[in-house]
Amino acid sequence: MIRAAILEKPLSPLVIRELPEPELEQGAAWLETIYSEVCGTDVHLYHGRLAGVPYPIIPGHINVGRMGRMNGEVRDVDGNVLREGDVVTFLDVHETCHDCWYCLVAKTSTRCPKRKVYGITYGLEDGILGGWSNKIYLKPGVKIVKLPAGLDPAVFIGGGCGLPTAFHAVEQAGIKLGDTVVVQGSGPVGLNAAILSQLVGAIRVIVVGGPALRLELAREFGVDDVINIEATKAEERVKAVRELTGGRGADVVIEATGAPGAVAEGMAMARDAGTYVVAGQYTDNGDVTVNPHWLLNKKHLTVKGIWGIDLSHFYRSILVMGKYRGRFAWEKMVSRHYGLAEANKAIDDVEHCRVMKAVIKP
Amino acid sequence: MIRAAILEKPLSPLVIRELPEPELEQGAAWLETIYSEVCGTDVHLYHGRLAGVPYPIIPGHINVGRMGRMNGEVRDVDGNVLREGDVVTFLDVHETCHDCWYCLVAKTSTRCPKRKVYGITYGLEDGILGGWSNKIYLKPGVKIVKLPAGLDPAVFIGGGCGLPTAFHAVEQAGIKLGDTVVVQGSGPVGLNAAILSQLVGAIRVIVVGGPALRLELAREFGVDDVINIEATKAEERVKAVRELTGGRGADVVIEATGAPGAVAEGMAMARDAGTYVVAGQYTDNGDVTVNPHWLLNKKHLTVKGIWGIDLSHFYRSILVMGKYRGRFAWEKMVSRHYGLAEANKAIDDVEHCRVMKAVIKP
Amino acid sequence: MIRAAILEKPLSPLVIRELPEPELEQGAAWLETIYSEVCGTDVHLYHGRLAGVPYPIIPGHINVGRMGRMNGEVRDVDGNVLREGDVVTFLDVHETCHDCWYCLVAKTSTRCPKRKVYGITYGLEDGILGGWSNKIYLKPGVKIVKLPAGLDPAVFIGGGCGLPTAFHAVEQAGIKLGDTVVVQGSGPVGLNAAILSQLVGAIRVIVVGGPALRLELAREFGVDDVINIEATKAEERVKAVRELTGGRGADVVIEATGAPGAVAEGMAMARDAGTYVVAGQYTDNGDVTVNPHWLLNKKHLTVKGIWGIDLSHFYRSILVMGKYRGRFAWEKMVSRHYGLAEANKAIDDVEHCRVMKAVIKP
Amino acid sequence: MIRAAILEKPLSPLVIRELPEPELEQGAAWLETIYSEVCGTDVHLYHGRLAGVPYPIIPGHINVGRMGRMNGEVRDVDGNVLREGDVVTFLDVHETCHDCWYCLVAKTSTRCPKRKVYGITYGLEDGILGGWSNKIYLKPGVKIVKLPAGLDPAVFIGGGCGLPTAFHAVEQAGIKLGDTVVVQGSGPVGLNAAILSQLVGAIRVIVVGGPALRLELAREFGVDDVINIEATKAEERVKAVRELTGGRGADVVIEATGAPGAVAEGMAMARDAGTYVVAGQYTDNGDVTVNPHWLLNKKHLTVKGIWGIDLSHFYRSILVMGKYRGRFAWEKMVSRHYGLAEANKAIDDVEHCRVMKAVIKP
Repeated sequence: MIRAAILEKPLSPLVIRELPEPELEQGAAWLETIYSEVCGTDVHLYHGRLAGVPYPIIPGHINVGRMGRMNGEVRDVDGNVLREGDVVTFLDVHETCHDCWYCLVAKTSTRCPKRKVYGITYGLEDGILGGWSNKIYLKPGVKIVKLPAGLDPAVFIGGGCGLPTAFHAVEQAGIKLGDTVVVQGSGPVGLNAAILSQLVGAIRVIVVGGPALRLELAREFGVDDVINIEATKAEERVKAVRELTGGRGADVVIEATGAPGAVAEGMAMARDAGTYVVAGQYTDNGDVTVNPHWLLNKKHLTVKGIWGIDLSHFYRSILVMGKYRGRFAWEKMVSRHYGLAEANKAIDDVEHCRVMKAVIKP
Repeated sequence: MIRAAILEKPLSPLVIRELPEPELEQGAAWLETIYSEVCGTDVHLYHGRLAGVPYPIIPGHINVGRMGRMNGEVRDVDGNVLREGDVVTFLDVHETCHDCWYCLVAKTSTRCPKRKVYGITYGLEDGILGGWSNKIYLKPGVKIVKLPAGLDPAVFIGGGCGLPTAFHAVEQAGIKLGDTVVVQGSGPVGLNAAILSQLVGAIRVIVVGGPALRLELAREFGVDDVINIEATKAEERVKAVRELTGGRGADVVIEATGAPGAVAEGMAMARDAGTYVVAGQYTDNGDVTVNPHWLLNKKHLTVKGIWGIDLSHFYRSILVMGKYRGRFAWEKMVSRHYGLAEANKAIDDVEHCRVMKAVIKP
Repeated sequence: MIRAAILEKPLSPLVIRELPEPELEQGAAWLETIYSEVCGTDVHLYHGRLAGVPYPIIPGHINVGRMGRMNGEVRDVDGNVLREGDVVTFLDVHETCHDCWYCLVAKTSTRCPKRKVYGITYGLEDGILGGWSNKIYLKPGVKIVKLPAGLDPAVFIGGGCGLPTAFHAVEQAGIKLGDTVVVQGSGPVGLNAAILSQLVGAIRVIVVGGPALRLELAREFGVDDVINIEATKAEERVKAVRELTGGRGADVVIEATGAPGAVAEGMAMARDAGTYVVAGQYTDNGDVTVNPHWLLNKKHLTVKGIWGIDLSHFYRSILVMGKYRGRFAWEKMVSRHYGLAEANKAIDDVEHCRVMKAVIKP
Repeated sequence: MIRAAILEKPLSPLVIRELPEPELEQGAAWLETIYSEVCGTDVHLYHGRLAGVPYPIIPGHINVGRMGRMNGEVRDVDGNVLREGDVVTFLDVHETCHDCWYCLVAKTSTRCPKRKVYGITYGLEDGILGGWSNKIYLKPGVKIVKLPAGLDPAVFIGGGCGLPTAFHAVEQAGIKLGDTVVVQGSGPVGLNAAILSQLVGAIRVIVVGGPALRLELAREFGVDDVINIEATKAEERVKAVRELTGGRGADVVIEATGAPGAVAEGMAMARDAGTYVVAGQYTDNGDVTVNPHWLLNKKHLTVKGIWGIDLSHFYRSILVMGKYRGRFAWEKMVSRHYGLAEANKAIDDVEHCRVMKAVIKP
């Protein structure tokens, strides 16, 4: 039997249910869940803020586990045959069609209209397709990646979905060796952006966020300067960034906050001819007012909105954790583990910032 | 003697004055003016809307003329020695330092703090450094370009400053062969952006502007579709663009309007993962309100503000006019010529859109 | 019954055979062939110069025809449902997996090890999967593109496989508006590269090729200068290019010859800091000797080898033909039509350059 | 008096001469030399292998010293006024014109025909313009950079000219986070390329070089794998790289050897659709034979030759040393110091690889 936490509908507390184990179709497999992440998206799911969610669902989109039974040969992205017991993760995005205009002509598979996401746009009707469950059904064609030797699942889940999201943001940012980068936001996406910025050549990283505990973690992750939003006003923060950058502003600013107002502030923090990446506006939290003369035209600014991730971001994130797990203690991003029965508390703790990151251990 | 139209201070009518002809320093030259453009910047100058203008000034930043006396050898950008009578133009931007952090480390010379612009940030105190004058003093090191054989000065001034500005915008737009491009604005920058978009591979160009006469000219310049802003509301225009693009929106949108509200509208016209270039916000006309979730993050949009031009845009624009003067009749952008004594009327006509483009013929 | 020309094995004359019509699997369709191209690859096939060809095969990789019977709903790349009688073409490359490291991490689907090509790496054992046949079996998932209204199949096949190959080469070349481009080779890839270079902004195109008749066609296609390889030696050609480019060499050089020696010559034709695209070395014709100090390091040259095409190149090529069929008469590239029974003569005529392009009309 | 080592003509031993101290022109300054590098270029100078060298010359192009007397205000690249005693370095390339087609239209200032290089293309006739001298004359406009607080001149000279050259190579390489990089060559350019590749995101770096002592230093600099060229044949090295990269080859290969044959070997080490940067062919050491079908076209390879450096590479290299001097002990690249009187021995030791790097301490 499967045991899963189910979100019946928005604002309804999750319930634990036992579900019959369906047959594996050819090429499918069971993943025995070790950890499943609780992230900001799950808070949005609980509140019904995302479009296209087929409630009831099993939440949990980033997961790590052990390969269980398979129906036929199942391979990882590198083409290696998988065996029972292998510790793996998988890309939550499935069914990107690689067949449509967005995938093949525009080459922007993150905007493919057919893509489905485990734990978000797959519902219970579609199967056991979320991670808050002792087992996850891996459909044929799901992109599976084996954890590199020595990469503990606890480290992997510490990176969680924030790491590949930050990977995409940092990739788009075009950081050059020697640049100064400001990251707005000190949640998982922000801290991962701060880590990855260093790994691609930033020699100074400034994190603008809060509360103080998160900024301390930022410092542990090698960040040079922090600005606490709880103790400052927007103009003060912009001024502080200018002072830290010889009056010019940062070469690159990465937004990972979810607050619309951060966008105008971040544009002001960037230097003339700099780059601004907007990676945190994952739901509609309202509008922002900007002056296009000062902040776009005269500033000669490049602004990049990014949506989602593709396999390259996920796959390369895992390589990065395999290499740098000694330098950056991703496992410290996890504040505590929750059993399936504590799923409601986990969401509540994340929503109210009582934890940096919550992890379900079914 | 020199005869020039002088703007003593903002809102003061231009006056014609005779000025003594200063000595040429080593490497300097006189340009005998054939045409000098009147552009939107001159309207801003008249109203005192630009920072850093050392009134009194001789306006006129884009000019074409005949080489007059020179003190010593003077060469064009290709390294050829110039002779009296050669028909040439020159880059209005001078004194870009190629010595500072912006020029040499950031490689963004358009943001060099030392650059000076003929007819805008050079004042009468600095010399005869504007085109609304029978002669212009070419300082040593001014970047001079000879008109290619067969390129009439009337065609060149038809391109005017709108052409290299559009060149920069189109360069940043990264148009791919087969793309659909929307241009917002049907003034000189907009129409030139519509021309250049075709030359770099757009196979469909839609111009959103007005009044009707300008849209007719857009059609003569090969534009496929026009949307008249005088007869439509913003949502209708966004809808019209979607309908013309199979529901997706345009691959690239280029803003050349000067109206802050156009920015939110243009973002909505772009397709997911498209590109939006903001090239028209040359003075502070106010703010715009945008939704960063829908228009940046989820749309996966790239927005590029651009400021000014560098020599490559100017030089290549002239090559383009030399090649395509038979296909695009740039001279049609000029509505009428004005003598120096009519400079006030020229500014007024441009401000009130009575003309597409005014040209001073001293 | 199907009637197809079959290449049993290398160097064996093609034979016409009648074949039973297999059942259509779900999602498959028949294409009733209008035209199938004969290209240089078919000459290589005949001589057995390509690896991985599962003889016997039905050649013919670029094809245009009418949709025949379908098993279930079949859609084109734009998502439109196809009907019998629709005039369509399809991407010859199939089974690109979009599942492996090359496809999803390196994002270079042209190097996917699983891709199969109609008429080249699909053999008769795999089905009726080549165009020298009155009908072609379109497997489920084949990327089908409808010809735009007004685009005659004769124009399409004139573009043939040379057009998307040239599209890929020109895309990689990064031509900037105002550049001078040299194309080495005046066969179908070369002439299409000369056309497309103009469409993305080259203002001067020089074709180095022969014989004279092909160079005349190049001129009809808007090429500014031609250099006949039958009347010149390599050093003379390099010198001629320098003279046509003010001593600097071309901004971009595109190789489309198949002759190894052309590579050293083309590198020498490029200017310092220029770009060289190698698109014509589709089989191993031997080595070339180059001096890496003069031709790479000191020249600061970028060289790009390109292999194959992906759907974007094919899809956008068709948009381009739809737009520009009045300006460039692609149909003139076709020298004559051959019935299926004349397939051997067609190959022989292509091999010995008796024709510019041969087309099979089954 | 000035005391300098002078190379009268090729193959003539350097002599020490005392020279009168010329007057400082406005904006010029004296630099009191702390260290001047001896590099491979100096060996080429001694043998007369470089074009355009106006013997007699004072060698020494990369230098660090203390600001001495100045005539008027002298500023560093950041715009700060310099004072006597400041520890600075300066870009060896001077007189890049920022006025010609290469500088301003092609935007490739490294190919500017007017550039002059201290210690290489400036001769004794031009002044005290080389570093093997107790004082160096800094001409007006020389790009001066102050060493960051805490950056010891011994660390700076350890980076030497190899660091900015490697910076340029790595910038062109386009390394992505997670890539595997092969560096061919374990001299100063090679080891710096190995360091910088890690700093921009390579997670695995393989150095192919020798002798063993240099490979040990490579390991100290964080290199993951080394292949000793003294113990292997070319095919074995290519095979070893394939084995280390799961059979695919490296994402990026950087050549820093000076041996023409390395180019074919390096191309073979790159994966399909990888990038190869040729940075080591600084003089004509002969030709290389390559197969353009296998190594360019089918491999879909991008090859980039690079020449020289510009200020951004030099300036950012210094930022990098300021940040990472604790992680990478650049000073270990220096094997020993030589007095001016030992200059001939220094050249001889470099030529015969008796030292990793020699430094003149006048």
